[in-house]
Amino acid sequence: MNNLLKGKKGIIFGALDENSIAWKVALKAKEQGAEFILSNAPVALRLGKINELASSCNAEVIAADATSMEDLKLLFEAATAKFGKLDFILHSIGMSPNVRKNKEYTDLNYDFFLKTLDISALSFHKVLQTAYQLDALNDWSSVLALTYIAAQRTFPGYNDMAEAKATLESIARSFGYHYGKNKKVRVNTISQSPTMTTAGSGVKGFDVFYDYADKLSPLGNASSEACADYCIAMFSDLTKMVTMQNLFHDGGFSSIGMTEAFMND
Amino acid sequence: MNNLLKGKKGIIFGALDENSIAWKVALKAKEQGAEFILSNAPVALRLGKINELASSCNAEVIAADATSMEDLKLLFEAATAKFGKLDFILHSIGMSPNVRKNKEYTDLNYDFFLKTLDISALSFHKVLQTAYQLDALNDWSSVLALTYIAAQRTFPGYNDMAEAKATLESIARSFGYHYGKNKKVRVNTISQSPTMTTAGSGVKGFDVFYDYADKLSPLGNASSEACADYCIAMFSDLTKMVTMQNLFHDGGFSSIGMTEAFMND
Amino acid sequence: MNNLLKGKKGIIFGALDENSIAWKVALKAKEQGAEFILSNAPVALRLGKINELASSCNAEVIAADATSMEDLKLLFEAATAKFGKLDFILHSIGMSPNVRKNKEYTDLNYDFFLKTLDISALSFHKVLQTAYQLDALNDWSSVLALTYIAAQRTFPGYNDMAEAKATLESIARSFGYHYGKNKKVRVNTISQSPTMTTAGSGVKGFDVFYDYADKLSPLGNASSEACADYCIAMFSDLTKMVTMQNLFHDGGFSSIGMTEAFMND
Amino acid sequence: MNNLLKGKKGIIFGALDENSIAWKVALKAKEQGAEFILSNAPVALRLGKINELASSCNAEVIAADATSMEDLKLLFEAATAKFGKLDFILHSIGMSPNVRKNKEYTDLNYDFFLKTLDISALSFHKVLQTAYQLDALNDWSSVLALTYIAAQRTFPGYNDMAEAKATLESIARSFGYHYGKNKKVRVNTISQSPTMTTAGSGVKGFDVFYDYADKLSPLGNASSEACADYCIAMFSDLTKMVTMQNLFHDGGFSSIGMTEAFMND
Repeated sequence: MNNLLKGKKGIIFGALDENSIAWKVALKAKEQGAEFILSNAPVALRLGKINELASSCNAEVIAADATSMEDLKLLFEAATAKFGKLDFILHSIGMSPNVRKNKEYTDLNYDFFLKTLDISALSFHKVLQTAYQLDALNDWSSVLALTYIAAQRTFPGYNDMAEAKATLESIARSFGYHYGKNKKVRVNTISQSPTMTTAGSGVKGFDVFYDYADKLSPLGNASSEACADYCIAMFSDLTKMVTMQNLFHDGGFSSIGMTEAFMND
Repeated sequence: MNNLLKGKKGIIFGALDENSIAWKVALKAKEQGAEFILSNAPVALRLGKINELASSCNAEVIAADATSMEDLKLLFEAATAKFGKLDFILHSIGMSPNVRKNKEYTDLNYDFFLKTLDISALSFHKVLQTAYQLDALNDWSSVLALTYIAAQRTFPGYNDMAEAKATLESIARSFGYHYGKNKKVRVNTISQSPTMTTAGSGVKGFDVFYDYADKLSPLGNASSEACADYCIAMFSDLTKMVTMQNLFHDGGFSSIGMTEAFMND
Repeated sequence: MNNLLKGKKGIIFGALDENSIAWKVALKAKEQGAEFILSNAPVALRLGKINELASSCNAEVIAADATSMEDLKLLFEAATAKFGKLDFILHSIGMSPNVRKNKEYTDLNYDFFLKTLDISALSFHKVLQTAYQLDALNDWSSVLALTYIAAQRTFPGYNDMAEAKATLESIARSFGYHYGKNKKVRVNTISQSPTMTTAGSGVKGFDVFYDYADKLSPLGNASSEACADYCIAMFSDLTKMVTMQNLFHDGGFSSIGMTEAFMND
Repeated sequence: MNNLLKGKKGIIFGALDENSIAWKVALKAKEQGAEFILSNAPVALRLGKINELASSCNAEVIAADATSMEDLKLLFEAATAKFGKLDFILHSIGMSPNVRKNKEYTDLNYDFFLKTLDISALSFHKVLQTAYQLDALNDWSSVLALTYIAAQRTFPGYNDMAEAKATLESIARSFGYHYGKNKKVRVNTISQSPTMTTAGSGVKGFDVFYDYADKLSPLGNASSEACADYCIAMFSDLTKMVTMQNLFHDGGFSSIGMTEAFMND
């Protein structure tokens, strides 16, 4: 491979099984010479196959509830004890109790809504704040979170995850300002095509939605492997001056108004 | 005046005192022939001068904590009992405990952060959901919330209100989809210049910030009176097909990269 | 009506026949108390029915090729001789020889491309520059041009008009800066739904395209009447601080990622 | 190095001297294993030092006026005769006669304006159309053009180059659609910080403008070396599903509303 991440250390949040984007990122980061810790919520560790991934990447697994400042502090302390300061973080975490419980957007449960925001968006702030306060990142580190274009446009099935992603992208900008100015750390989000992850494909109507995006995108939907490649590029030193951006990785979907495919139907 | 709102009924949230944008909207809506209820949180009613406004507008005041579904239900029931179905709503509500307590963005309190989101953004969803479930709005009603460009770009002093405004604007889009499709109701946000309200001007560094925006904007900062005029236009039947938009009312600020004013310093 | 434009004088470019948006704007501006001159290219005057409109609006018609600085100078001199300084301008002008000749986007004729830009975009700069140099506009005047979302996203059939609209919107921002700073004049574009004008409906595949947008928009496509209403609002004093903006008037189309309508197909 | 472009062939337009971004891209592309042809306008070849670059990159130089379809055809025929199909193209071409002649934006010469558009924007379409019609690019090729944020926001000194960049970015989207759908070729623009190139630094007030952007950007202005790194990432296989995007490479400038730096002045 290209040794793009040689000597770099990091934390990868959110690998559940081989369909996870974070799983692919871990494999590619390893190929490119990185070392890292894999983290996920305790329940996800039990349900998923992260140990399989850990052994193929020679990586340690540390459980952490990313909404818990205590868990995050322990995680970052363990990571820096092992590696010294870190160079990259991937945040691939999202869950909506309203979606899980099939609540309509016009009939949301507000405790659930706040949970959606806490798990899917504030967790990113908590990760950044923990790293910032522990001074756990090297200058010119790269922090990424995965997001979706529902933050800009309405996809009815996405429900209150739209607001979570809008919040997440705002956190990337806001924290990117502070972390950039004070520590030269860059913070970005990648807005990925619909992806056949275990989480995604469980959502009602996901297949129709996936096919629609695939048809509309000139290059088709971006795969999780391609997304992992893009994450590698964003973790590498080739992209040091990109910060506070939301980067569409979607085969062109975001820039399409209409495709000829629909005109020939 | 122009009778632009003749026969229209509504609810105006957030008038505290004569510096409030909602206060100006109430006065202009009255001039244009509207009838409405004024609502604010109980504490704001005690501290502000809303009864003064109410008497000059011949409007009823109904206290409601906009984060409480119970309060909102009572409010909308009272409003529709009085007026029948409504035609417009103004949401001008925002507060951040993190800002109040001078928490740095890199040292946020997360209970406060969730409160910021609940008060400043979810309250808008709660207002919409209440109206929707009670079927309290006429077809072609117009719902507005006031927001700020910190939802798109970073202004350090704005702190976690940036995320609240990003969430608020996302709610306008998401709910605008459902309300538009099912009831022809439009939902938009107006992104207003920094305004010398009682709330705004209390924030540290607000005057520097205000002057910067004023200098950068070709037309200068938009006043609260001008914002009220814009709200009237958006409540009127002249704008029936505008929905799910964030509308900058800022003297051009949002489209400026740099002004000659800075080049001559 | 509401006398929103009482005492205001202007020029309306681009009324061809009763399907033109500019035609509807003229009728509504008249209703609201405005006086104006109607202008169009000599060939359009011959082919269209503008004199019919002129008589019902009690308006003068002055032919002008909007790509000709000489014609524009004569027009503005005549207009100001008649009215004194003006208060509003509508630019509803666009034509692509590449579209007319059915050139594919990957096989454009570049003389045509430059003509598309000159007619559909530079004409707007020429109108503004003429007005600016003759000091033909009152402070707080409002200048509008009609555009389409193809400036932001790709609609294959729209061809090089996409670039023309991108240029047009950029001119609105750039000239809006100078005109705002120096004369308090605001300049905006309205990005309108596909509209069944005589020009639009002649384009190949327009009906499929129209239906697609109509189905995707929560409120449906905006009609030309509704667009005229929005223009009135933007010419009125209710929107004095809105400038350098591109305003979507599209029933929500621009904020939609996907609609349930497609999920049930 | 990382062999990111091993085996890839391309054309790099616009290297004038060692201050050019295209110059740095050439050096880095060489380091990463690419082979390429350097092209520039005949006059630029005479004035610049491109032969120096060519010899250090072991690259051929072929003169071409990028506004001439004949020149471009000869260039692509020579390139494909030498290399077979190509994998990447860099377009770094821009010039405004209005800027050169110090014409104010409110007093433009329209022949110049069309020249600005032809040289700085249509040339990109001509490059793409030539490549497309000659079928000169491999599947999954990457085409980049350099642009500036003046396409979105007004910077007075940038003059009619704002419209040129808006057109250029629109061409990237429009052609990206067709090239993506038919040949899996991706087309993007990189929106770079103000850069001290020989062309840029000649513009009046450029130093004030450069410093302003540098101060506003959390990471400071991106250098031409960093921009070249980003181009390498975008030419590599790590970014295969990114298309029709405008990518800000600006140290965060585009996402900043205001910086604390100005608050302490």
